Amino acid sequence: MGKQEPRRVGRPNTGSREKLLDAASALMIERGSIDIPVADIADGAGLNPQLIRYYFGGKQGLLVALLHRVATKALADLNALVLSDLPPVRKLEMHLAGIVSTYFRYPYTNRLLHSLLLDQDATAAGEVTRFFVEPLVEAQADLLRMAAEAGCIRRVDPMLFYFSVIGACDFLFSSRHTLVKVFGVRDIDDELRRRYARHMVDLVMSGLRLDDQMDRAA
Amino acid sequence: MGKQEPRRVGRPNTGSREKLLDAASALMIERGSIDIPVADIADGAGLNPQLIRYYFGGKQGLLVALLHRVATKALADLNALVLSDLPPVRKLEMHLAGIVSTYFRYPYTNRLLHSLLLDQDATAAGEVTRFFVEPLVEAQADLLRMAAEAGCIRRVDPMLFYFSVIGACDFLFSSRHTLVKVFGVRDIDDELRRRYARHMVDLVMSGLRLDDQMDRAA
Repeated sequence: MGKQEPRRVGRPNTGSREKLLDAASALMIERGSIDIPVADIADGAGLNPQLIRYYFGGKQGLLVALLHRVATKALADLNALVLSDLPPVRKLEMHLAGIVSTYFRYPYTNRLLHSLLLDQDATAAGEVTRFFVEPLVEAQADLLRMAAEAGCIRRVDPMLFYFSVIGACDFLFSSRHTLVKVFGVRDIDDELRRRYARHMVDLVMSGLRLDDQMDRAA
Repeated sequence: MGKQEPRRVGRPNTGSREKLLDAASALMIERGSIDIPVADIADGAGLNPQLIRYYFGGKQGLLVALLHRVATKALADLNALVLSDLPPVRKLEMHLAGIVSTYFRYPYTNRLLHSLLLDQDATAAGEVTRFFVEPLVEAQADLLRMAAEAGCIRRVDPMLFYFSVIGACDFLFSSRHTLVKVFGVRDIDDELRRRYARHMVDLVMSGLRLDDQMDRAA
């Protein structure tokens, strides 16, 4: 590809920027790792490695931009859900299935997030906190509040909810080696994605039922 | 310490082995990372770094031994629970609180586990699968089966249960940077440990209630 479009090196365009992000994303999925050399990313995109410096200021900038792209898509869906006219319980269910879908499509999301949050460079950590984690926590808290105010679920600490639900949805996708070695499941196909989303919705939505519903059931 | 006990280098003893594991454990907790140089581990134990090769064959062997120590303790408690006379629901509750306690005491557990499972060295991956993940999955499946057979919970896929519950219990402890940066919580103290355990027990045990209990409650 690079050979057919030699001018790209001299004249960068928006397509090249996206191509680099696409290549990084594809390689992370393929190798099950976020440690991809810049040379491989450039190779995968069929572009000159210097473009990574040009567009992103370096490899870390590229990683932040990749996470930003995932976050933008996921948060757009989530915010549309918060503002929609759906019943509050349905919104929460769709949010849970949405998290599973995001990790299904971009299984490197959480590893990338944590690697950037742990980075010595406080700027990157601050950025990803602002554009990803804070808006996610806020939208989740809104969904929980709406459902609780409508009398559909019990009140729950949004912080504890965040850690338990994000950790649970992510773990299937970030532990593929366990899936292979212990359960003999080589690939997460769309059927397993759907079963896991269903499992999470059942577990969490039943788990959030009101105490008086529980008492009546007991 | 090393200076006071110079003979240890020449004449290793069981105490030295444990001291090296204690030092590795303490440094992983202190630094929030599993990447600890062998020199620092030896320093922390006040022992000669050569003892790491002597006892563990090298750094990776030390990491496997450390995880083995955590697993031995956790699985002893879990197996005692499986065999106990407690009601099945109480066993599941105590298991959930037990997972949270393990990650509270040894927050590096899951990172260490995954790093060893991903390691190029298939021997280490096979070992940790056999001494940790497989027995844990099996004991969890036993607990779920007992509670379902007693009519206390609905049937649930042990594989999906494993990923959701382990992922959820772990995530608070493996994401301390999020806890600090987003929620302003600097330390996980025993009160937060207890709140998280309570949250997990409430969420999961309500989440596992029988469908007919749910129907009656709806």
